[in-house]
Amino acid sequence: MPPPGAPGARFLAEIHEQPAALERLLAHEDEIARAASLALERDRRLVRLVGHGSSDNAASFGIYAFGLLPRWTAMRDAITLSVHYGTPSDMRGSTVIGLSQSGQTPDVVEYVALARAAGALTVAVSNDPASELAQAAEVTIPLCAEPEHAVAATKTYVNTLAVLALLAGHVAGRGAEVSDGIRRAADQLAAVLPSLEQATAGIALPFSYTGRMFVIGRGVEFATAREIALKLLETCRIAAEPLTATDLAHGPVAALDPLFPVWAIASPDGTLAPVQEAASRTRAMGATLVASGTAASELEGAAYTIPVPAPTPQLLSPLLSVVPGQLFACALSRARGFDPDAPRGLAKVTLAR
Amino acid sequence: MPPPGAPGARFLAEIHEQPAALERLLAHEDEIARAASLALERDRRLVRLVGHGSSDNAASFGIYAFGLLPRWTAMRDAITLSVHYGTPSDMRGSTVIGLSQSGQTPDVVEYVALARAAGALTVAVSNDPASELAQAAEVTIPLCAEPEHAVAATKTYVNTLAVLALLAGHVAGRGAEVSDGIRRAADQLAAVLPSLEQATAGIALPFSYTGRMFVIGRGVEFATAREIALKLLETCRIAAEPLTATDLAHGPVAALDPLFPVWAIASPDGTLAPVQEAASRTRAMGATLVASGTAASELEGAAYTIPVPAPTPQLLSPLLSVVPGQLFACALSRARGFDPDAPRGLAKVTLAR
Repeated sequence: MPPPGAPGARFLAEIHEQPAALERLLAHEDEIARAASLALERDRRLVRLVGHGSSDNAASFGIYAFGLLPRWTAMRDAITLSVHYGTPSDMRGSTVIGLSQSGQTPDVVEYVALARAAGALTVAVSNDPASELAQAAEVTIPLCAEPEHAVAATKTYVNTLAVLALLAGHVAGRGAEVSDGIRRAADQLAAVLPSLEQATAGIALPFSYTGRMFVIGRGVEFATAREIALKLLETCRIAAEPLTATDLAHGPVAALDPLFPVWAIASPDGTLAPVQEAASRTRAMGATLVASGTAASELEGAAYTIPVPAPTPQLLSPLLSVVPGQLFACALSRARGFDPDAPRGLAKVTLAR
Repeated sequence: MPPPGAPGARFLAEIHEQPAALERLLAHEDEIARAASLALERDRRLVRLVGHGSSDNAASFGIYAFGLLPRWTAMRDAITLSVHYGTPSDMRGSTVIGLSQSGQTPDVVEYVALARAAGALTVAVSNDPASELAQAAEVTIPLCAEPEHAVAATKTYVNTLAVLALLAGHVAGRGAEVSDGIRRAADQLAAVLPSLEQATAGIALPFSYTGRMFVIGRGVEFATAREIALKLLETCRIAAEPLTATDLAHGPVAALDPLFPVWAIASPDGTLAPVQEAASRTRAMGATLVASGTAASELEGAAYTIPVPAPTPQLLSPLLSVVPGQLFACALSRARGFDPDAPRGLAKVTLAR
């Protein structure tokens, strides 16, 4: 591990804090259960998720958390309709969940305020329970990740996933099952972090000159693909694009070549076949394949394989499967001579409108 | 224009066919109006759009067409929930719109069949009204684009936008306004195509060695950003990633440098300020900026500016603003020695699951 103050020391320390951050969140489960009760009492079954960057990536997971547990429809809503075009949607049957680590993202705050005025049940999920976003929403769920100093989000991302899983679990009457699963996943993560760090450090060096990557997943792991791609963009300056395994075949596969590697996240469920097919197309184009996820070993032809343990319920696998990507980004950023704690052109709090 | 049989001849010919394809579609407006009437009669106000590749990009436009005209909520639904995880959503209040040029995309066909069985009003939008997708859905709207031979979609994409605008317009009781607007936009496009072709051909050469690009837009033009990025991936093998203007600032901006240009699409509405801010961040990183869209001239510091005429209603601007990207991709693909008619690793009909 780099010494304190060295490039990447904060980012890496926060990656290692993730199991403890998840444990802290579980101590606030009651607040999440109350938000779920409100949504049930008021019958607000259409879930509108809004956020940017890592928060928006977590929203991709929320679609599956609500779709798989209470079978409610969740969506990443179009902020622009209400905030920039002044044409708000009918919000009476909706639960709105605003996601922002800082709680300061301007258009998310404005969207939540407009949605509340239009009758939505509004929930803020933020690492700052006194933030503007928290003030705009009716209910606030604290991320409990403690201050995050590295610009690239890690523990706040994983805790956002956990909040969404717990909310969906409590709506479905399966809160205890989900919280037990998160506790076990935190333990699994703590146990495997040292070996994941070693494995990803060994893999980073061959990617020192990589300029382009695709990161593919499907279903619950599409959020992981998005988040790993964002870490590579931010900390390694790689043009990393997330794609669903199926969308890869609908055009982007044509861009692949031996200098354009693909990171694939595989799960042992109905999405395995499309991910295997995408991996096979990747290899046919001569591109290097990195296989990750709980079913990493099911992808043939991978140059590198980084499996993670499988949690239960399987919905929680993104809590673990993002971590090899975080560690790989940290090691590769340092190998390229960058400082993953402080990427160029970024600040920790993004106030872009 | 390249002679028949030369690389790019089909792709370019189909780009030029787009005004005529739009006119053909307008002759089928009655069928679209009938689908809108059904959605109104049955009160199916939650619109679920599904497709891959260019069809999914058009779905991004559909969110705004339905959000701005009848103020209905539309979303790009998660196919995986029903098709791969076997957990279908409650479809009773939903209109499902399956988008596929070929009508053969396997998971889209399966999603539509499951949604119909679960009680959704199902609409197929396809260039083949006898396709599997058309058979799976209750209502079929033909794209009327005539056969598309180039692998990269052009006229079927623009006609899919027009179908979605007409559907949303008829639901809102504004069908005539939208169809008049499409007719005028087709005329505007026909008039401007020769000069756009000349302008983009002159710009392509400086990008011969470009490996990475971002394409940014917001609101109705996010669909355009996605579609231009896909053309660049498919035909030019550029790692082109679409981003909303705001998401650029939430991480990806860190990857920019003078060899990583940005194509920005600007509109003269509430989204102009975020796009201007993103353009300014782009220039601060030393990256080359290409300004396009109906408000291209409002972006400062652009190395190249390719404006398009503004249609009315403004919702229709993506019918025009995608065309400079199509033409640029065609010219750049040929400059790089590729054949834009037949990208490596792709077939016209994608049967990936």
